[in-house]
Amino acid sequence: MSENGALPHRGKVLTVDTMNANVKKVDYAVRGPIVQRAVQIEKELKEGVKKPFKEVIKANIGDAHAMGQRPITFFRQVMALCTYPQLLDDNKFPEDAKNRARRILQACGGNSIGAYTTSQGIDCVRHDVANYIQRRDGGIPSDPDNIYLTTGASDGIVTILKLLTAGEGRTRTGVMISIPQYPLYSASIAELGAVQVNYYLNEEKCWSLDISELQRSLQAAREHCNPRVLCIINPGNPTGQVQSRQCIEDVIRFAAKENLFLMADEVYQDNVYAEGCEFHSFKKVLFEMGPEYSRTVELASFHSTSKCYMGECGFRGGYMEVINMDPEVKAQLTKLVSVRLCPPAPGQALMDLVVNSPQPGEPSYQSFMKERTAVLSALAEKAKLTEEILNTVPGISCNPVQGAMYSFPRITMPERAINEAKAKGQAPDMFYCMKLLEDTGICLVPGSGFGQRDGTYHFRMTILPPTDKLKIMLNKLKEFHQTFTQQYA
Amino acid sequence: MSENGALPHRGKVLTVDTMNANVKKVDYAVRGPIVQRAVQIEKELKEGVKKPFKEVIKANIGDAHAMGQRPITFFRQVMALCTYPQLLDDNKFPEDAKNRARRILQACGGNSIGAYTTSQGIDCVRHDVANYIQRRDGGIPSDPDNIYLTTGASDGIVTILKLLTAGEGRTRTGVMISIPQYPLYSASIAELGAVQVNYYLNEEKCWSLDISELQRSLQAAREHCNPRVLCIINPGNPTGQVQSRQCIEDVIRFAAKENLFLMADEVYQDNVYAEGCEFHSFKKVLFEMGPEYSRTVELASFHSTSKCYMGECGFRGGYMEVINMDPEVKAQLTKLVSVRLCPPAPGQALMDLVVNSPQPGEPSYQSFMKERTAVLSALAEKAKLTEEILNTVPGISCNPVQGAMYSFPRITMPERAINEAKAKGQAPDMFYCMKLLEDTGICLVPGSGFGQRDGTYHFRMTILPPTDKLKIMLNKLKEFHQTFTQQYA
Repeated sequence: MSENGALPHRGKVLTVDTMNANVKKVDYAVRGPIVQRAVQIEKELKEGVKKPFKEVIKANIGDAHAMGQRPITFFRQVMALCTYPQLLDDNKFPEDAKNRARRILQACGGNSIGAYTTSQGIDCVRHDVANYIQRRDGGIPSDPDNIYLTTGASDGIVTILKLLTAGEGRTRTGVMISIPQYPLYSASIAELGAVQVNYYLNEEKCWSLDISELQRSLQAAREHCNPRVLCIINPGNPTGQVQSRQCIEDVIRFAAKENLFLMADEVYQDNVYAEGCEFHSFKKVLFEMGPEYSRTVELASFHSTSKCYMGECGFRGGYMEVINMDPEVKAQLTKLVSVRLCPPAPGQALMDLVVNSPQPGEPSYQSFMKERTAVLSALAEKAKLTEEILNTVPGISCNPVQGAMYSFPRITMPERAINEAKAKGQAPDMFYCMKLLEDTGICLVPGSGFGQRDGTYHFRMTILPPTDKLKIMLNKLKEFHQTFTQQYA
Repeated sequence: MSENGALPHRGKVLTVDTMNANVKKVDYAVRGPIVQRAVQIEKELKEGVKKPFKEVIKANIGDAHAMGQRPITFFRQVMALCTYPQLLDDNKFPEDAKNRARRILQACGGNSIGAYTTSQGIDCVRHDVANYIQRRDGGIPSDPDNIYLTTGASDGIVTILKLLTAGEGRTRTGVMISIPQYPLYSASIAELGAVQVNYYLNEEKCWSLDISELQRSLQAAREHCNPRVLCIINPGNPTGQVQSRQCIEDVIRFAAKENLFLMADEVYQDNVYAEGCEFHSFKKVLFEMGPEYSRTVELASFHSTSKCYMGECGFRGGYMEVINMDPEVKAQLTKLVSVRLCPPAPGQALMDLVVNSPQPGEPSYQSFMKERTAVLSALAEKAKLTEEILNTVPGISCNPVQGAMYSFPRITMPERAINEAKAKGQAPDMFYCMKLLEDTGICLVPGSGFGQRDGTYHFRMTILPPTDKLKIMLNKLKEFHQTFTQQYA
């Protein structure tokens, strides 16, 4: 204090100049400026501001329920029973739902889903996850001790990246990620101060992964950092491709040869639509390649309750399986996750239902399968529809949406539009998407938020809106693109 | 591959030598070796191994439901309704529960708790939090834009520490934490590579906080780092003290003078038992000190669904309020939390119920208040009981448990026991707690896990077991301490 009792003028302790520099480098386009503007526009619409559209259609994020998809009844029944066990006496709930709930509650401290769980996740859930993986992968064993439940897949991915980040300068950990990528990766790499190493997917070959490109990228990276991790998203986000078994084998061979830790983001494992495409887990292919690989290659794979046919994003459920992780590192991992106590117990319970869904003969089996199939067939139909309609637009070219929930079409932008964007300091596809939002209410994410080859422009669009709305949206988009092209011709 | 097709022998990519060095430094005693051994012992008991006790009593962690506390009925009714909205037609649920559920669902994408929420948290929940804070603090305004919902309080605390961590070497951010402390702080500081700056609480004065000690600690720290943050836990964990209004005012004045960002961990705000003690929020005191302080001092305060009378740890609900945060930094904070998409929606909904609980006149008010009061009175009784019984043991001395859920008594250890522990490479109180666990099944956390003055020994014990069990436990502990003291005399 000064003598007259007034505090001396003090600046802020925490300013952009004195804050964590890595955090400043973080970017997350899926919830970036376009989405913030979309939220504003929604408010303006509510306040009666006149717009050339009546509602904002949010095709920016893989949020199925927000786009009208209904939750799976069985899952919600079990979750309600776990939450309010008095309902176990209610005969409106099917017996299999009650059995699942009783089993989960018995595994909870004090039989309450409100108790902390062990940090690695509820024991019986981890066992169920391991059994699921084993069934999925044709009998290849999975060890519950290798399963860690997580707060959505994002949490697991960041945790593994955190373990792997070390060194300084030229020895700093490099993380190889596909371009286009899901920006959780670039954001986490920036936050951790690791080095982002880009490898480009081959748009001309339906966003496939070429080993020669991996090789190029790795060699270039070795000049300035220590690339130790290779991240793969399959089925792909934002690009919607499904990798062939051969490709996965090649990637694993490459990782083995080059001493890379593999991270396989497989949250869209049930979202495969295209004929001839099939989901192959990295774990399965690794083990089919024989002990030379299955006993050496380090792999972490990730799954979640947020995608597939469930779309239960809000519960933040997920798991990861770690393979060939050094036991001492595993102990460090277990210690690290214990600091945050545990993943949300409701998310863990929901993850359990996903891996331990109703079986033939159980009362809820038929209705569960019906609901599941309905969601997945609708998605398959919308994947096709999206590709078809977009490809009728001159100046838009869209690869088949083989899987996941997104199309990532390439757009041809007139030179004048590119220049106007640059004059504004905007990425040209940001400029495009912002104009699209203002003119039509359609909210997409510009390709620049995911990364793309220089001089190419894209957007990511989810295929989640209900079919009628999707059709309207695609046609509006078509019209917009034509007008835009004329306007800037 | 070598020419015969075999892979060259490759070491692990990720080993303790090549992993993130900061992660290795992380320690989290609340789930450390004692707890791991307790879990093992429970398994052994199940397998029929003979022990001098029949069950493990876990008094190591503030996990109320695991110790038999029942969830608040109203909260679980609303959560069940949000989870399975078909129940809204069920007349077994009270109208106020239904209204709360409808309101929350209306604020969710697609009216589903399975949708992502905005990253900062559901709008109406943040408004309810702001209203709660305003009521709690006698009308001092709270702005919903300053509220961030979090995945438990831990998440918020780590996020703010992350923003604040910057600089290298002598300019590296120093974080002042009380000793004893809750090890989330030391663990996060280690993980972020910030510098832990200890200030000691005054055990002789009931774990109070002396400004002279803050001054000493700060001056010493300025020799080797840049102390920018002062963390306070009130009511205290692990020490159970409740700070006086005067003390809080002094701390705020100190922070203002020394340019420190204040972090107030107030998750035990309803857990105040001792006569003459009262909870004062840092926010309230700050604003009562006048604009000179209320317009300048940067403060983040934290709350959670896990403690108080709710004990809903598994839901991982929480919020933080940031005061006087630089708007540009706030934008960075909002961006940073968006990378993880959103806190768990069920945890957000539960947080809403905590800040928007049944009001007089609503159908659930009476039963809610009855349940709430029962939990808090039982805790008050157990706080007193714990202090009383422990203080009858020669060689144990226990400060009053004024608040929170823990006692942190000091134990006198015989020289021979200290030497034996040291010979084993164990902290003496770790040796004591391990022996206690093996002999009696009581699971406590050694004081060394929280920090203590050199040459003093403590343990942390929750007051959560049901009263009968708590009495048995305390008497067993008494007996153990006497035997231990004789054995090592």
